[in-house]
Amino acid sequence: MVAHMTWRIIVGLAGWLLAQSVMAAEGRPPLTTAEVIASAKPADWRPLDPENTLYVELASGRIVIELAPTFAPDHVANVKTLAREHYYDGLAIVRSHDNYVVQLADPDAEKPDLRRKIQRGKRTLPGEFDRSLDRKIPFTRLTDGDVYAPEVGFSDGFPVARDPKSGRMWLTHCYGLVGAGRDTATDSGGGTELYVVIGHAPRQLDRNVTLFGRVVKGIELLSALPRGTGALGFYEQAEQRVPIKAIRIAADVPEKERTALEVMRTERPVFEQLIESRRNRREEWFHRQAGHIDICNVPIPVRTIASGRTNVVAQPR
Amino acid sequence: MVAHMTWRIIVGLAGWLLAQSVMAAEGRPPLTTAEVIASAKPADWRPLDPENTLYVELASGRIVIELAPTFAPDHVANVKTLAREHYYDGLAIVRSHDNYVVQLADPDAEKPDLRRKIQRGKRTLPGEFDRSLDRKIPFTRLTDGDVYAPEVGFSDGFPVARDPKSGRMWLTHCYGLVGAGRDTATDSGGGTELYVVIGHAPRQLDRNVTLFGRVVKGIELLSALPRGTGALGFYEQAEQRVPIKAIRIAADVPEKERTALEVMRTERPVFEQLIESRRNRREEWFHRQAGHIDICNVPIPVRTIASGRTNVVAQPR
Repeated sequence: MVAHMTWRIIVGLAGWLLAQSVMAAEGRPPLTTAEVIASAKPADWRPLDPENTLYVELASGRIVIELAPTFAPDHVANVKTLAREHYYDGLAIVRSHDNYVVQLADPDAEKPDLRRKIQRGKRTLPGEFDRSLDRKIPFTRLTDGDVYAPEVGFSDGFPVARDPKSGRMWLTHCYGLVGAGRDTATDSGGGTELYVVIGHAPRQLDRNVTLFGRVVKGIELLSALPRGTGALGFYEQAEQRVPIKAIRIAADVPEKERTALEVMRTERPVFEQLIESRRNRREEWFHRQAGHIDICNVPIPVRTIASGRTNVVAQPR
Repeated sequence: MVAHMTWRIIVGLAGWLLAQSVMAAEGRPPLTTAEVIASAKPADWRPLDPENTLYVELASGRIVIELAPTFAPDHVANVKTLAREHYYDGLAIVRSHDNYVVQLADPDAEKPDLRRKIQRGKRTLPGEFDRSLDRKIPFTRLTDGDVYAPEVGFSDGFPVARDPKSGRMWLTHCYGLVGAGRDTATDSGGGTELYVVIGHAPRQLDRNVTLFGRVVKGIELLSALPRGTGALGFYEQAEQRVPIKAIRIAADVPEKERTALEVMRTERPVFEQLIESRRNRREEWFHRQAGHIDICNVPIPVRTIASGRTNVVAQPR
């Protein structure tokens, strides 16, 4: 009996040591999300590129959008051109559709005589709904599966799906993703109308419309807007619309007026640890660990560096 | 060549006829969601049971919650007892956490001397995080898979997961689901604090907390509230909280003051058609059909019957 117990202890101990070594080899000690973020080193974060950062300025504050030229190069270039010619300044948030999207547009877009003129930008572009799968593009794959796509994961701070069979990859419609509204024709978008996802990921839109960015700060200025009472959440009265003071490229804003943000690098071991901390929650409150995670439930941490203090702004919930 | 063409036409025609007959046999012509809803017969809808309907009355309007006694009988009974003793009246929405939950609670809950007294209800209950899998409980299974659970589907208007191996079933945290907040101990909830999901489905909460209902009307009165700026989205100033005028059981409200709603029956062929209309969108706008659908992206239609007019209030997006 004693020998048997001893044997069980040895087996148990060996198992524990094996588990520890596996976790060490994988770089995955069982940490909470807060512990993972606290453990991140300076090299685990990257600053936003001012040339690929958009500021949407409202009376209520600033919304910061990171652009994704890898996935929608023509739309990113066009939106930047439109911003630089002040196309958006004075337009409005015209739609707030509960559990779906808010939309920024020209309220007179359907009136050729009244609508905002375009100088150097383009009114429409062919859709960039997906792109060729390039294995040189970073991809931290999520092993938990997905209802919609063969493969999902993260690329440079964006949620991405891939289909090796068709050789395509695309951004996925998670909370905070930003796209270019379009009419029925697939080449009727281009960036004159923008939408931001403010509800449960409408993944049915994937590959149907061009996603070109992600809100990294200030989404609550959009998500908490009163819902429109018209069809599809459009505001019915002009005075319900929220004016856009300006949309600017961060690089065009004096440096001291910029919002200094850093995004966790999604290609580093620390991000794999973060995913694991969300897949199996270690916080004392959790009674049962899910063992899986949906791509749109993985937070991509963003922090503000101001007056020497690091403050994680996208509070993982 | 002509014979070959003829043969191809015959094969093609046979395939088309087969597809038509399969669709007819399955009762699944390719309809849009609007067409499916329009095709629903009176028997495809059921009225809410006034004894299992909660009205949350705010200054901004009424939120209607359908209760789920099949899944959380003790919590439903306790919430009804608390409502009937006016426990909630004068309490407040104390938290609005972006892309997560709003919470209704006693702002003085942590102060034993100041907190609201309870008469006949209970302050805490053991969690009802899941229940025994009973195959007599209706279950319209979704065949698209799920990241979190072995089986998902719909039961009497609620999104449900099942695990045949462990013989358990539970409600899933989709947008609009209502639960009983708890502290760290699993028996520290009970219904004195309620939360409503207002963001991407936080499925990591499944089986960690008791879900007992679903908002069927008025969620925009919660989802569009300003976000709290404190930790976890709590309001930092007392004046930011939104007072709860009352929470009442519909059966206790004079009939002409009730909100007459009907929910589409999720056990009828029409609901299978509705799922299919969401899995593969037929609207002209869609360039590519997803072929799959996530359980939390299936709308459960609710309509108001007022002055002879049918008005679908939960607008499928």
